[in-house]
Amino acid sequence: MIAHSFAPRHLGVNADEIKEMIQKIGVSSLDQLIDETIPSEIRLKKSLQLPDPLTEPEYLDHIRTIAQKNKLFKSYIGLGYYNTYTPSVILRNIFENPGWYTAYTPYQAEIAQGRLEALLNYQTMVSDLTGLPIANASLLDEATAAVEAMMMFFNAREKNKQSALKFFVDKNCFPQTINTLKNRAISFNIELVIEDFAKVSIDENFFGAIVQYPNVNGELIDYTDFIQYVKKLGVNVAMATDLMALLLVKTPAEMGADCAFGNAQRFGVPLGYGGPHAAFFAVTENFKRFIPGRIIGVSVDAQGKKALRMALQTREQHIKREKATSNICTAQALLAIMNSMYAVYHGPNGLKEIATHIHEHTCFLKQELEKLGFTVSNKIFFDTITLQANEKDIRPIAEKNNINFRYNNNSTISISLDETTSTKDVYKIIEIFAEAKKQSVQLQYQPNNLIKNSTFKRTSPYLQHPVFNSYHTETEMMRYIKSLENKDISLVHSMISLGSCTMKLNAATELIPLSWPEFCNLHPYVPTNQAEGYHYIIDELSKYLCEITGFTGVTFQPNSGAQGEYTGLLIIRAYHKDKGEPQRNVILIPSSAHGTNPASAAMAGFKIVVVKCDVQGNIDVDDLKQKAEQYKHELAGLMVTYPSTHGVFEERIKEITNAIHQNGGLVYMDGANMNAQVGLTNPANIGADVCHLNLHKTFAIPHGGGGPGMGPVLVNDKLKPYLPKHPLDDSSNSKAIHSVTAAPYGSALILLITYAYIRMLGAKGLTDATKIAILNANYLKDVLKDHYKILYTNHNNRCAHEFILDCSTFKLQSDVEVVDIAKRLMDFGYHAPTVAFPVPNTLMIEPTESESKHELDKFADALITIKKEIDAILNGQYDKKNNPLKNAPHTAELIASDNWNYPYSRETAVFPRPWVKQSKVWPSVARIDNAYGDRNLICTCPPISEYEMA
Amino acid sequence: MIAHSFAPRHLGVNADEIKEMIQKIGVSSLDQLIDETIPSEIRLKKSLQLPDPLTEPEYLDHIRTIAQKNKLFKSYIGLGYYNTYTPSVILRNIFENPGWYTAYTPYQAEIAQGRLEALLNYQTMVSDLTGLPIANASLLDEATAAVEAMMMFFNAREKNKQSALKFFVDKNCFPQTINTLKNRAISFNIELVIEDFAKVSIDENFFGAIVQYPNVNGELIDYTDFIQYVKKLGVNVAMATDLMALLLVKTPAEMGADCAFGNAQRFGVPLGYGGPHAAFFAVTENFKRFIPGRIIGVSVDAQGKKALRMALQTREQHIKREKATSNICTAQALLAIMNSMYAVYHGPNGLKEIATHIHEHTCFLKQELEKLGFTVSNKIFFDTITLQANEKDIRPIAEKNNINFRYNNNSTISISLDETTSTKDVYKIIEIFAEAKKQSVQLQYQPNNLIKNSTFKRTSPYLQHPVFNSYHTETEMMRYIKSLENKDISLVHSMISLGSCTMKLNAATELIPLSWPEFCNLHPYVPTNQAEGYHYIIDELSKYLCEITGFTGVTFQPNSGAQGEYTGLLIIRAYHKDKGEPQRNVILIPSSAHGTNPASAAMAGFKIVVVKCDVQGNIDVDDLKQKAEQYKHELAGLMVTYPSTHGVFEERIKEITNAIHQNGGLVYMDGANMNAQVGLTNPANIGADVCHLNLHKTFAIPHGGGGPGMGPVLVNDKLKPYLPKHPLDDSSNSKAIHSVTAAPYGSALILLITYAYIRMLGAKGLTDATKIAILNANYLKDVLKDHYKILYTNHNNRCAHEFILDCSTFKLQSDVEVVDIAKRLMDFGYHAPTVAFPVPNTLMIEPTESESKHELDKFADALITIKKEIDAILNGQYDKKNNPLKNAPHTAELIASDNWNYPYSRETAVFPRPWVKQSKVWPSVARIDNAYGDRNLICTCPPISEYEMA
Repeated sequence: MIAHSFAPRHLGVNADEIKEMIQKIGVSSLDQLIDETIPSEIRLKKSLQLPDPLTEPEYLDHIRTIAQKNKLFKSYIGLGYYNTYTPSVILRNIFENPGWYTAYTPYQAEIAQGRLEALLNYQTMVSDLTGLPIANASLLDEATAAVEAMMMFFNAREKNKQSALKFFVDKNCFPQTINTLKNRAISFNIELVIEDFAKVSIDENFFGAIVQYPNVNGELIDYTDFIQYVKKLGVNVAMATDLMALLLVKTPAEMGADCAFGNAQRFGVPLGYGGPHAAFFAVTENFKRFIPGRIIGVSVDAQGKKALRMALQTREQHIKREKATSNICTAQALLAIMNSMYAVYHGPNGLKEIATHIHEHTCFLKQELEKLGFTVSNKIFFDTITLQANEKDIRPIAEKNNINFRYNNNSTISISLDETTSTKDVYKIIEIFAEAKKQSVQLQYQPNNLIKNSTFKRTSPYLQHPVFNSYHTETEMMRYIKSLENKDISLVHSMISLGSCTMKLNAATELIPLSWPEFCNLHPYVPTNQAEGYHYIIDELSKYLCEITGFTGVTFQPNSGAQGEYTGLLIIRAYHKDKGEPQRNVILIPSSAHGTNPASAAMAGFKIVVVKCDVQGNIDVDDLKQKAEQYKHELAGLMVTYPSTHGVFEERIKEITNAIHQNGGLVYMDGANMNAQVGLTNPANIGADVCHLNLHKTFAIPHGGGGPGMGPVLVNDKLKPYLPKHPLDDSSNSKAIHSVTAAPYGSALILLITYAYIRMLGAKGLTDATKIAILNANYLKDVLKDHYKILYTNHNNRCAHEFILDCSTFKLQSDVEVVDIAKRLMDFGYHAPTVAFPVPNTLMIEPTESESKHELDKFADALITIKKEIDAILNGQYDKKNNPLKNAPHTAELIASDNWNYPYSRETAVFPRPWVKQSKVWPSVARIDNAYGDRNLICTCPPISEYEMA
Repeated sequence: MIAHSFAPRHLGVNADEIKEMIQKIGVSSLDQLIDETIPSEIRLKKSLQLPDPLTEPEYLDHIRTIAQKNKLFKSYIGLGYYNTYTPSVILRNIFENPGWYTAYTPYQAEIAQGRLEALLNYQTMVSDLTGLPIANASLLDEATAAVEAMMMFFNAREKNKQSALKFFVDKNCFPQTINTLKNRAISFNIELVIEDFAKVSIDENFFGAIVQYPNVNGELIDYTDFIQYVKKLGVNVAMATDLMALLLVKTPAEMGADCAFGNAQRFGVPLGYGGPHAAFFAVTENFKRFIPGRIIGVSVDAQGKKALRMALQTREQHIKREKATSNICTAQALLAIMNSMYAVYHGPNGLKEIATHIHEHTCFLKQELEKLGFTVSNKIFFDTITLQANEKDIRPIAEKNNINFRYNNNSTISISLDETTSTKDVYKIIEIFAEAKKQSVQLQYQPNNLIKNSTFKRTSPYLQHPVFNSYHTETEMMRYIKSLENKDISLVHSMISLGSCTMKLNAATELIPLSWPEFCNLHPYVPTNQAEGYHYIIDELSKYLCEITGFTGVTFQPNSGAQGEYTGLLIIRAYHKDKGEPQRNVILIPSSAHGTNPASAAMAGFKIVVVKCDVQGNIDVDDLKQKAEQYKHELAGLMVTYPSTHGVFEERIKEITNAIHQNGGLVYMDGANMNAQVGLTNPANIGADVCHLNLHKTFAIPHGGGGPGMGPVLVNDKLKPYLPKHPLDDSSNSKAIHSVTAAPYGSALILLITYAYIRMLGAKGLTDATKIAILNANYLKDVLKDHYKILYTNHNNRCAHEFILDCSTFKLQSDVEVVDIAKRLMDFGYHAPTVAFPVPNTLMIEPTESESKHELDKFADALITIKKEIDAILNGQYDKKNNPLKNAPHTAELIASDNWNYPYSRETAVFPRPWVKQSKVWPSVARIDNAYGDRNLICTCPPISEYEMA
């Protein structure tokens, strides 16, 4: 039944609207538009071979049977992943609420104060618990956080240390962390020294070190002396650690660490077979300007009111291309927000109670296992103990009881307890070991707390800020969450037409199964036979994505697009090396590329050569050919976005990719604009060898207010051998690159969304989505073209799925900058399109296929109204410094003031068009002063006294 | 662990706050306050005997195992209940969203425009589909809707028909409907004539009739001639019908019906083992002023803008006591909203496609069964066919295939298809019947549509209004739902301190299991062994509620408090009759009683005698004793609310109940104020024999924006034999009263909420909740007492869980009415307390145990600020007609206007206190003109031209 079909729900326009729209565009059919948009030589000759689409109810039935294939054992595996209880009030009101998960990255801070506050709480929490003053708003996972720590130290080397290339990694760090460090070390010629910290000999040739606390065996180690010693040699130290442990033990800061990082997952975020989870990252003041990732800072708005925004934003949004020190351009915002809310809800006392419960049960467990005659290696520990025992003796009994332990290679077993471990659970664990010894036990739980009586006992306070001490009832918590939600614009309000970000519908049916325990509660390292549901999805999805891209191999490890780029480039590097051409280290990148491309290439250790663009915005093919030829001995490859970042299907793409291949290079296609390709063309067809896909763009994973993302990498046959290995696989006899992330399948939980999206749309639905994405963009372009200059189109005057408004003349004539238009759009209830990327003084608009004609018309009306306001400046009606654009956005507080000194009415300010009244979204602060915030960097919750002053 | 315990999350204040609050109150402990509040003679001597509380995660584990006990067969039982698909966008954004389900009944229309619009859509949908111009905003269920239809006709009898007491019911109406009509008929001496409409002889002694279309056998019958005939005799006709069928067949209106009603469940609301579901009800213009229930109407606000509100509201909110024609005071708002959204999402074409799918599959089914040699009795039908077959031949095969049919007594089987029935499902049904005949079948589905080629074919259009033709993509639908949500105040914003309505926390953990298929998708008439999960909960909950009330028997049938009252009174009547005292027909009711009490007594056929109150607001015990004595031969009983509607634990309650018993009466306790009793006293202790409990007040079921509710009735041993029987049980040899509702356990789905509430709080948590409800009320009273006159307290100056602010002097001195205070509170972001009930010119405040001290203080600050504004009127600063109270609420549009002619600032208008800025909730319209709306009654969506004008 059509009524239950997904495609008509996902696609914003129906047949009648298509008719009106093609008329406006001046074509006789949608197919004609597509023919005029995409070069015929790269068009697919047949439709995608995918399973028939399921209706929404059919899909829910189907996925329920898949869920049943996952087996929910109790897992005590640890290694940075722990069972947790997500408080229902957080689950329902954040994790399952599109008001939170459909929001975009908070670049437009005035309409993002809700999630900015939640992220500031997160930073405060991380800072408090680690003892380090500066925390970022999360990284992708613990393993990549370790890489970032290493690179931060590398980049921050003093002049006299520039030749120091050694980096120490304690051998008792998590294996997946060690494994992930290797790729980057290779790229930068860093020598990883992986030894026991107590035995290693550190000298001036080292620039940094990582130790883990508690370590992989669960042991708490006081690194104070070690750190003091190596610091004297100019060696900076990062500590992998655990927020739950830090509630009870002294901080990394107290031991002298420069940086602390780890996985925040166990603060209320489901395991999800590996992610998405937020990694936390904190540093001393010394590394304030080196800390990678996104930092939320406190500033003031135009009215002098406290306001939050992303600090040091330019560093991220306009990544310094080939000089980049990091290619990170996302965070795990939604998960970090959940972590922070977990702390807000439990508060310091609740958290301490949870941590104490875990520790005391671990102490009891150790005591009872020792009574049974087992040798436990730990002296002092938090939640994990490691004992001498053979896997073959224990595992069969454990699995019979639906229990997983961590079986180490060297005849030891580790057991990690967590928030969900009850006294009964501990009894069961002991009984298993007793059974192995053929003993019986009489158990009587007695709390015992080793930390409390040790030198590790934490004495410094934490989470004293009111936000962590005010919302401990569900009523208060629900209201706090909702009050923050209601400050932000998300897809529940209006179109978010960010170019290249593809803010399409994130359908409820796609999201619903993510809450099911069978998907939530699976540890990433359980035996594969317990995760058959996941593997069914992973296998199927691999096939579909190969079909869609024309490739044959895939890795799901990368947790973001940038990580996908990096991974793809490592694969290219591995290929050339394997072919005996390790000297191939030049990557050509068009000048129009997203800044992440050169940054990723730099992270992979490549030399970047920029290719020019012509006046139409296309790659200058002559320049490209010349450079490919010039560097033919060193040419590793080309990074190219297709359709281009200018929103055009470049006609000569095959000529371009051929030129690269002819000179021995490979072609990496950035999948950011894949939404314009699916079903119509594909990366293999245009001549690419490898690409990443942004599942959080093209494939319906929500942006989560700034993460999670997923950037799986697809390759053709010749690159398949180099796909990254499993994070826990340390074998050296493979061609595979090292793992790029801590979890074998990245953020496996959210693969469900993409799987649902493809299963419910099917081949035709996916292809229609692409066509309508192109239709919507061309329609909106043609509605706006009489009011704004359209920057780039192809020779038929068609754009792809996005287009650029050139606003450069406004600045010259009226002093209006694109940012003013962006802020003024807020008064209409709109989030701005992409500002000043890829071309300065422009707006790039991508409506996606999910928006209706009605919404496009409304948005166009807003932009046209703004254009008239610009005209009013030009004709002198408004002052250049005092007009609705420069003063935007206008808050309710502003119009409630009796002092109104603007040359336009309050009505013009906040209800510039009648339709705005229907569902006004109020910016909660006025224009934010970014410079002030960067000059006065505050990235934890301001002390309560400041609130009182305000 | 306390961190996972529910009690500290549910209770608004912690130990530190309790200390501050008891100090303010002037007691040394919370227990002292309780001792000073509740008479010692009725206090419980021991704590409640209930299972130990489960933590939230433990509860979710527990209820998951209970869910597994329900078996999900495919049910083709019909009888007004059908499988349906709830669109995920509606499930997630309404059913699972506290922004919708925690709202109160939309009495305060200015902050309820969102759900009022959704309910107006519902009325429009019902009106369109039935063809009748006036529809209400839903009734409790189909069976009680039939009762209301009968009573409407009864009450609307012309002068010359006053002696007509016969009511015709076609024997092919649903059995549960017929059964439910019987009680009311008895109460009003109405003679039900249950026969075949084609054979019955109607005369002037009949005042009304009910027929069903399609009827119980699935047959579509054209009642045009019948109706024409009986109308001439002054007999009005109501038609039980089915919205899904009406999409294809001609309307009740076209056949001449005066009224149409039925269950709207199959429009997207889960079966839930019987409810909650909305019954629809529509009438001709003639019955505009007689239609029962709530009607949403269109009016204008103070600025002349279109605005919605409950029309003819006085009829409902201030029920005309003993002269009442109905005791209904709730609707199934949340479910009606979901029904309407289902229609908004599918639109007329989508709905028609669904209905056609159902019908065509039924036609195919009939054809194939006939091919197999079965005799199908239907000539023309929509979704249900009835065939000759023996249960014993079919049932074993069907159950082996996990399929339920409807097995009728007389060797026939009925099969009802629905939206979820696929072609494969129909094949399976046919195969079962083939197997019974030991035949094999080769099936090839061919659509066949009998209705299309019949005289039943619907030709009139429906759902032409833009609202049903605009939101067919998920993006548009999600935004529509969210835009409505954001117009309304609910518990996600602030305390809703309605006296006697107990707007406490509706915790997410309590609600989560309601979305699970094992609970959602169970038909109410499946064999009990398929509903073991439900029966476990029903049995356990029966025990708990008996323990809490001190009673020994319970019925879960009543779907509202008023229906509970009615049921309890029917039980009292049955008792007296059974004891040989049928003449006992006087019910004493204190003058302070809620209007529903006398209305319910009237519906049960009792004569009402009012008992006076003394100046302290207590029952005048002398008057009561005198009247009990005076009517000792006719005394049926007393209805009493305890603590009283004045919010006081009357000291002489035992004396009162004893006096009733001594004179042969029974005591009915209205459970509206049970939140002040749980764990501290109970109805049995105060001398009651029967009570209802408002599960949607005391026991945490959310109010759903005006329903659902649940009003189970509890009785002591002597009344147990009279508890209502099963709706499908028509045996006459029992003492039980007839069923009072269509489903055996009322709205079974939401019993889960109450079950969770009790299991997670346990005895201590429940008792603490009561204590803190009393603490919060007394604290707030004492904070306010220097600013407002407190109306009633006990001799220790304590209120129970609520208290009354006397505002009568304001009116005299400053022209300020309580409604002005109510509207002004909106400017502070608050929903008003109960206005002018139970005493005119007062506000009754019940904060509940879930609110924090911080919230109480904020609310008090709002009320104190308002009091200062009243003082400013008194001292002449403000004009009596032009001040912040009279002009409240103030909208954003108002302050955005450059014309500001008020004697106070915009800031005073909309941000009267600084804290209001933190999370301002904007009323979407200004003060609504109720009189205008009642004079110009419009209760369907206004034509689009009116929107254009606006």
